[in-house]
Amino acid sequence: MRIVVVGGVAAGMSAAARARRLAHDAEIVVLEKGEHVSFANCGLPYHVGEEIEERSSLLLHTPQTLRAALDLDVRTGHEVTAIDPGDRTVTVAAATGSYTLGYDALVLAPGATAVRPPIEGLDLPQVRTLRTVPDADALRDLVSDGARRAVVLGAGFIGLEAAEALRLRGLEVDVVELAPHVLPPLDAELAALVDAELAAHGVRTLTGVAADRVTATPGAGAAVEVGLADGTTLPADLVVLAVGVRPDSTLARAAGLEVDDRGAIVVDDAQRTSDPHIWAAGDATSVRHAVTGALGPVPLAGPANRQGRRAADAILGRLTPGRSARGVLGTAVVRVFGLTAALTGANRRTLEQAGTPHHAVHLHPGHHAGYFPGAEQVHLLMTFAPDGRVLGAQAVARAGADKRIDVLATAIAAGMTVDDVAELELAYAPPYGSAKDPVNMAGFMAQNVLDGTLRLWHADQLDDVRDEALVLDVRSPEEFASGHLPGALNVPHTELRDRLDEVRRTAGDRPVRVHCASGFRSYLAHRALDQAGLDSANLSGGMLTLRAARPDLVLERGTD
Amino acid sequence: MRIVVVGGVAAGMSAAARARRLAHDAEIVVLEKGEHVSFANCGLPYHVGEEIEERSSLLLHTPQTLRAALDLDVRTGHEVTAIDPGDRTVTVAAATGSYTLGYDALVLAPGATAVRPPIEGLDLPQVRTLRTVPDADALRDLVSDGARRAVVLGAGFIGLEAAEALRLRGLEVDVVELAPHVLPPLDAELAALVDAELAAHGVRTLTGVAADRVTATPGAGAAVEVGLADGTTLPADLVVLAVGVRPDSTLARAAGLEVDDRGAIVVDDAQRTSDPHIWAAGDATSVRHAVTGALGPVPLAGPANRQGRRAADAILGRLTPGRSARGVLGTAVVRVFGLTAALTGANRRTLEQAGTPHHAVHLHPGHHAGYFPGAEQVHLLMTFAPDGRVLGAQAVARAGADKRIDVLATAIAAGMTVDDVAELELAYAPPYGSAKDPVNMAGFMAQNVLDGTLRLWHADQLDDVRDEALVLDVRSPEEFASGHLPGALNVPHTELRDRLDEVRRTAGDRPVRVHCASGFRSYLAHRALDQAGLDSANLSGGMLTLRAARPDLVLERGTD
Repeated sequence: MRIVVVGGVAAGMSAAARARRLAHDAEIVVLEKGEHVSFANCGLPYHVGEEIEERSSLLLHTPQTLRAALDLDVRTGHEVTAIDPGDRTVTVAAATGSYTLGYDALVLAPGATAVRPPIEGLDLPQVRTLRTVPDADALRDLVSDGARRAVVLGAGFIGLEAAEALRLRGLEVDVVELAPHVLPPLDAELAALVDAELAAHGVRTLTGVAADRVTATPGAGAAVEVGLADGTTLPADLVVLAVGVRPDSTLARAAGLEVDDRGAIVVDDAQRTSDPHIWAAGDATSVRHAVTGALGPVPLAGPANRQGRRAADAILGRLTPGRSARGVLGTAVVRVFGLTAALTGANRRTLEQAGTPHHAVHLHPGHHAGYFPGAEQVHLLMTFAPDGRVLGAQAVARAGADKRIDVLATAIAAGMTVDDVAELELAYAPPYGSAKDPVNMAGFMAQNVLDGTLRLWHADQLDDVRDEALVLDVRSPEEFASGHLPGALNVPHTELRDRLDEVRRTAGDRPVRVHCASGFRSYLAHRALDQAGLDSANLSGGMLTLRAARPDLVLERGTD
Repeated sequence: MRIVVVGGVAAGMSAAARARRLAHDAEIVVLEKGEHVSFANCGLPYHVGEEIEERSSLLLHTPQTLRAALDLDVRTGHEVTAIDPGDRTVTVAAATGSYTLGYDALVLAPGATAVRPPIEGLDLPQVRTLRTVPDADALRDLVSDGARRAVVLGAGFIGLEAAEALRLRGLEVDVVELAPHVLPPLDAELAALVDAELAAHGVRTLTGVAADRVTATPGAGAAVEVGLADGTTLPADLVVLAVGVRPDSTLARAAGLEVDDRGAIVVDDAQRTSDPHIWAAGDATSVRHAVTGALGPVPLAGPANRQGRRAADAILGRLTPGRSARGVLGTAVVRVFGLTAALTGANRRTLEQAGTPHHAVHLHPGHHAGYFPGAEQVHLLMTFAPDGRVLGAQAVARAGADKRIDVLATAIAAGMTVDDVAELELAYAPPYGSAKDPVNMAGFMAQNVLDGTLRLWHADQLDDVRDEALVLDVRSPEEFASGHLPGALNVPHTELRDRLDEVRRTAGDRPVRVHCASGFRSYLAHRALDQAGLDSANLSGGMLTLRAARPDLVLERGTD
């Protein structure tokens, strides 16, 4: 039996290695058009940033080591140019000439290619993507050659990792993002925290604007100039193009395989394509989002590796129902200087756009017990359905964000409800968490929302609230004086019970919209107001979330 | 309505606070016999160790702050001496005199008391438990007064936290544990890693031995002497008694409430005791272990807080089926100097003792991508049932242990199988994890065990293996020369395919038991041997686990 694998990085190499472990006698050929197989593509930005000092660290395997350990026939610089599904052959172009290779099973793992938007000048030598080891080499060379200014096009995961790396190398860095905020997979009020961290480290972000040209500027201070649609020009010695990727399905389409409307190869739960002898895995394939049900490519390393493994299982008759493909959550994490941003499942924007009924809670608990030194706030957002099912979560923090998102990703994969999340029994000692972990707290809040104990208002309703309601600020007079919403009434939560009549009088026939710094004291106040018969709601996430969601907000100082 | 809560720390205060948020008008009285309510009992060791510098940090609330924020009537120094369930009254003893207080609903949250084994001399002033703020004060005073040597009785969580704290204060510390190894909730092969960390920091551990007396030694170098059953004597200036706790159910028993055979108060899924007007929560109550089904007390802060909250929900008619009590996993974590040890569910020993069919896998993956600087090995052990259900997990590591245990605790709570765990989509970027996270790897290994792709042998089978099998060591010649099992054959995994005949010849009619350093290269070898028709099995966790499980093992150096 001959298994041919097209593509030798994450999905392809997982398929080949797993196939060998299951089939001692199979002939396994891996055809990789690039120079390297099994390289650490997620490590590239850190090699640019010199955290990963040695280039060799990125090269996890070579054809020689794979031959020795797994008896794989790995051919780099061999590009498959055509598939003939009828004859079960692929045509291969290599430096030594073209040839045809038959297969019993074919695994397509061609990955994705960088999106190249219609921007003039992308072929200038100062413009690079960051997808391969040669890309990283080129960026390192530009830095070594004295580049002082960089423009990164795209503020997604790779764009921000590239921006961080270049800034750590001492360059001036501008990041340009077409979406309204950095890290578009986050909701705006969490992305704002990432934006602040970028600013604090001297990275400038320009959002809601497209780049439309890169022009060489010989003799000027910088090598090129990036022109934006709003007329801004940004000088740069290097430009990183990181506006996204698209599935590399050219070969598959030419062979008549089914692709989805985003161009990703359609596969069944066994990774099999529309041709019974061809399987596909990784960034080129179409997956179902576990929460939204949307079909399309989700270019992430974890799913790619498991898809490759699954393809081998399927080819070799080892696929059980429990190992079949599941929906993908899109769990992801990125480090941005001292901050971690992580997410899983569906965010508020996606749910709103899809018209999916949902709720959201915002909270800012410590990543471990507050009385133990070094507690950092975890800015956590959890979305959930009216029936209690958890739909998604996002966390931004200096510590503990990845852990909470991993727990919630597990909870969502299990179909857990907010009741289940409230009852999760997570490891607690003061250096690690709290007796009521941030995840439990999110569950408690969500339970309260669903049974009416907690009625929330959200930062994006602020304008209506200010028009129509009494804003009741239950922080201390000192906090209030340091900056509050104009027109807000200050009644510290500890005084509320004695001043209920005052609140009632001031509100008149208006509802009361209460808030504090993070949402907890105002929750106590909200409960008191609600039980006293007032129309009350509590600001989700308090001033912390409000200020992130509304960076334009002008606060008043002093007492009212 | 009057709700009376007995006990003002974790469970009791959670019940009282939740009750107020749900019932604005209820009278809520909290009776606490100690000096403090709502203090950070889990923080006590760190105050002894001076990481938490300020004593006030441990006092999260006072009766005054609880009155102001939540209108609670909190009475410290008020001890309930009797309950009259018929009259619905409690008798209270206070410095100001005794009184009787009626209740509509009573919540018992008396917690646990330290076990005081029949050891002579425990009433000496140098012997302290570490359960209360005054306990921490006393230990700090002993250290300030010049204590130089400490003996800690008990190597459980509190015992090790106390040992670490005292060592950080510069004392010589001996830890005495009756069980065969430190941290008895861990299996031996993981506990050995903790023991090594203690030794590396100068803490001496004496296991498998009981203390039988503490004697004052006036005029000697140290204040007291701890005598062990084996005749060893340990000089000490202070002794920490941390051999466990038992439920404080004296009041409940006197009132005729049902208790289990370990003395814990029996409650239903709504935290209600055998009396319809009395609820109970926290360390004094009996819970069902979610995996083993065993009934008994599980004194952990997380469950206690949630039980208290649930009791309030139940009393105030807010308990839905989704919020009812579930089994407890016993998820826990402890920091021991630079190491973290965490666990959830059932360990191997418990499953063996119960005769529960199960498998176990040991692995040592990096806590994040190996090519990113600073990767630490996560020593992970996962137990699972023949039907694939995950039963338990333990992790010891310098980083990343708590995260993996939290994920697996969530998986177990959800009833996930090893297939589910293999497919978990966890947050990956090089600083945080791997495309194949340690949790996924455990799932992959378990899948392989269940379908026969991976046949394991375990360190505790070593003696039989050496008698009856060929031990095949597939590490490199250099690794082999640095220390190997006497009689082992060395064939590096990359040479195995070419040397199969040699292995077959050497084995003769013996089975082949293969191993490497951590279990991965030998897995590849095992697959090749198995497919070549040899009777092969792979050592779970490799030499890393073997050496931890068998610290007595004498290895041979040089080539064979």
